[in-house]
Amino acid sequence: MSEAVSCLRLNPQAERRLKSGHLWVYSNEVDIKKTPLQGLQAGSQVVIEMANGKALGSAVISPDQLICARLISRDSKQFLDSSLIVHRLKVALSSRELWYPEGCYRWVYGDSDGLPGLVVDRFGGVVVVQISSVLMETLRQEIVDAIIKVIKPDAVVLKNDGKLRAVEGLPEYVEVVYGELEDNCAPLVENGTRFMAPVIDGQKTGWFYDHRENRAVLNRLVTGKRVLDVFSYIGGWGVQAARHGAAEVHCVDSSAKALDWVAQNAELNGVADRMTCWEGDAFEALRQLKDSGERFDVVVVDPPALIPRRKDIKAGEQAYHRLNQLAMRLLNRDGLLVAGSCSMHLGETRLPGIIRTLGRELDRDVLIQHVGSQGADHPVIPAIPETRYLKAVFARVLPTR
Amino acid sequence: MSEAVSCLRLNPQAERRLKSGHLWVYSNEVDIKKTPLQGLQAGSQVVIEMANGKALGSAVISPDQLICARLISRDSKQFLDSSLIVHRLKVALSSRELWYPEGCYRWVYGDSDGLPGLVVDRFGGVVVVQISSVLMETLRQEIVDAIIKVIKPDAVVLKNDGKLRAVEGLPEYVEVVYGELEDNCAPLVENGTRFMAPVIDGQKTGWFYDHRENRAVLNRLVTGKRVLDVFSYIGGWGVQAARHGAAEVHCVDSSAKALDWVAQNAELNGVADRMTCWEGDAFEALRQLKDSGERFDVVVVDPPALIPRRKDIKAGEQAYHRLNQLAMRLLNRDGLLVAGSCSMHLGETRLPGIIRTLGRELDRDVLIQHVGSQGADHPVIPAIPETRYLKAVFARVLPTR
Repeated sequence: MSEAVSCLRLNPQAERRLKSGHLWVYSNEVDIKKTPLQGLQAGSQVVIEMANGKALGSAVISPDQLICARLISRDSKQFLDSSLIVHRLKVALSSRELWYPEGCYRWVYGDSDGLPGLVVDRFGGVVVVQISSVLMETLRQEIVDAIIKVIKPDAVVLKNDGKLRAVEGLPEYVEVVYGELEDNCAPLVENGTRFMAPVIDGQKTGWFYDHRENRAVLNRLVTGKRVLDVFSYIGGWGVQAARHGAAEVHCVDSSAKALDWVAQNAELNGVADRMTCWEGDAFEALRQLKDSGERFDVVVVDPPALIPRRKDIKAGEQAYHRLNQLAMRLLNRDGLLVAGSCSMHLGETRLPGIIRTLGRELDRDVLIQHVGSQGADHPVIPAIPETRYLKAVFARVLPTR
Repeated sequence: MSEAVSCLRLNPQAERRLKSGHLWVYSNEVDIKKTPLQGLQAGSQVVIEMANGKALGSAVISPDQLICARLISRDSKQFLDSSLIVHRLKVALSSRELWYPEGCYRWVYGDSDGLPGLVVDRFGGVVVVQISSVLMETLRQEIVDAIIKVIKPDAVVLKNDGKLRAVEGLPEYVEVVYGELEDNCAPLVENGTRFMAPVIDGQKTGWFYDHRENRAVLNRLVTGKRVLDVFSYIGGWGVQAARHGAAEVHCVDSSAKALDWVAQNAELNGVADRMTCWEGDAFEALRQLKDSGERFDVVVVDPPALIPRRKDIKAGEQAYHRLNQLAMRLLNRDGLLVAGSCSMHLGETRLPGIIRTLGRELDRDVLIQHVGSQGADHPVIPAIPETRYLKAVFARVLPTR
C-alpha cells in the first residue's frame, strides 16, 4: 500500500456492530458527508474510522454494493498482501488439520478466515480456488503463490464461474493455473469413503464438504435400509450410505452427468450393485415413486438453495414444504427423513417448523432426533448469522400417538 | 378407565397449538365455565375437547399447575395403562437401538416418548426410573412390570428424589425395586469409554447421556492436548478425553464424592496417570488457576443449569458470561473453548452471543466451529422448543486479526 490510503468514517450504529465482532459495513452506515464512497475504486483497501475519527481497522471496499466494506484487520496499518495471505492460510490450515487430518476440507471460508471474497477447497494435493471479489481477483497470483508456498500442492484450479462474479463485474473462467489435473477431477476421502469430484465442470468447487458431519450421522443409521437420495449430485450421501451397509440406494438428480459420477463413485467403493440412478426433476420423481407404490426406510432431501434472495423466503419455504411432504409420504412406518437446506435465508428454527407442520398434515408424529449444521471447516462468526447457513434435520416419522 | 371420564374444553388458541403438534395445555386455556378444573384429581386422565365440543384426544391433568394437562393420545378413547406403557416403551426402544446399539441411553424422555412425567435411563441391564408426576407414581408398578417385560433387566431402580416431585406433592425416595445392584452403581459404555455411574446417590439418574455426541466431538480434538474439565462430575468429558490421547486432564468439581468417581473411572480406563482432580468452587478454581499462570489447550465448562426458572434469565446469562470469561482467559494461543449449557431458558443463539461478546472484551477472534445439542435419545418435539434444552458451543479462540 504505497499510495495514500483512503478512509471511511462510520456512523455510530455501524461502529457498535463492528466493535461487537461484525465485519461488514452497509452502504447506509458510512458518513458520506465526511468520507464519500463516490470515486473510490472497487477492491481497494481503506482505513475504517469510528464516528470520532479514531481508526478501527482496515477494510476492502465495494462502493456500489449494499455491503460496501468488509473488515480485513483490526490493525488499521495491516492490509491484505502476500505475507498476510500466507499467514491467514496457515492459521486456517491449522484449525482444519485438527478436525480433518486426511487433508480434504474447505481450507478457506471467506470472511470467517479473514479472507473475504475467497473460498478454497482442498482435495489432498488438488486445490480449487473460487474468487468472488475484485480485491481477490487482483491478488490472484499472490493467492496461488501462497497456496504453493504453504502446502506444495500437485495442482491449483481457479474455478471462477460463480454467479457472484458478475455482480462485481468479473469475467467467468475456469483454469488449471498450477500443476496438472488428471481427467479433470480430484480424488477425496470423506468419512472414510472415497470419491472423485469433477472440479472443472461440476457444481461450485466440485464437491460440498459442508454436509460432511451430517453424512457421518446418516452413515450410522443405514445398515440394511432402503435409502432414497434426492438431489444426489455425485452421490455424497448415497454412495456413503451404500458403503455403510444400506441394502439399496436410489439416487435422483436432474443431471445425467452428475449421475454418471454417482455410478463411478459407487464403482470406486464396490457398491455399484446396490445403487440405482434416476434422472429427472426431483418433484416429479417423488410423485412417480409415490404413485408406483415405492417406499423407503430413509429419504434424504438435500436441494440446492431454494431461497436465493431474502425476497424469495415465502416461495422458498413453500418449496421446502412441498418437497419434504412428498418425501415424508414415501417413508415406511417408523422411517427417517433427512431434510437439508443450504439457504442462509431459511431461519434456524424454520425447517424443523416445516417438518412439524407436515407431521400434523399427514397425521404422523414427528420426532427430531438430530439437527446438524455445516462442518468445522465452515467456521461461523458468531456476530454474522449469515455465516451459519446449513441445516440437516433428522426426523423420525411415527404413526400418530 | 372404567369410571366415567371427565372432559376439558379448550379455548381456540390452545386448540390451534395442540393441533399443530404441541402437547401441553396451560391453565388459562381451559374453558373453565364449561369444564371447571376445580375438583378434578391430579393425575387423572381426561378427554380433551376442542372449542366446538369435538374430542381432540386424551390427557393427564395437574389441575393446580401452570401446565394443567399433557396430551397422552390423539385417540380420545386411548388412556395410559399397562398395555400402552409396554407399547410406548417398545417404540422408544427401537429408535434408541438404531442410534446406540450398545444398550446405554435415555430410553424414555417424557413427553417426547408419549410418557409425560417419566424418565428412564438404561445402563445395559440396569434401568433407572425417574417419576415426576402423580399419574406415573400411580402407575409405578405397571411401569416396572413393563420394563421387565420388554428387556428382562438385571435391576430396576426408582430414583425418585428429583425436586419436581415436591411440586406434585410426591415423597422423595430411592429404591431398588427389582433385581440386585452391585456396589450401588451401574456400568456403562459411552463413545467406547467405560464408566461406573453412581445410580443410587449420584446426580439425577447417575449419568448425563445428553452430552454424548458433544463428548464424541471433543474426543476427536484432544490428542496431545492439556485439557481442563470444569464441573467434571464423575468425569464424562475428562476421562473420555484422556482415553482419546489428551496429554493431561484436570477435573474441577465441588463434590469430593464425584471426584472419587473420576478417579475410579480413570483407573477403569487406564488413564489415571494423566488425570488430576481439584475439589472446589468452579469460579474460585478458575481464578486461582489464572493467578498461578496455568494455561490449557482445551477448557470444557459444563455447569448445572444456571437459569433454573424463566425469571432467572438475566442473572443466569451473567453467570454464563463470567464463567466462560474465566475459562477463555485460561486458554493457550489458538485454544478451544467448549461451553455447555443445559438451561432450557437460555435461547439457542444466546450462548454463541455470549461467547462472541467475550471475544471482543478479551480482544480475541472467536470462531464457532461446532454447536452441538442433546443426543438422539433425547428427541425433540418440534412444536415444543422446551424439549430442546442442551447446547455445546465449540469455539476456537484466536489472537485478534
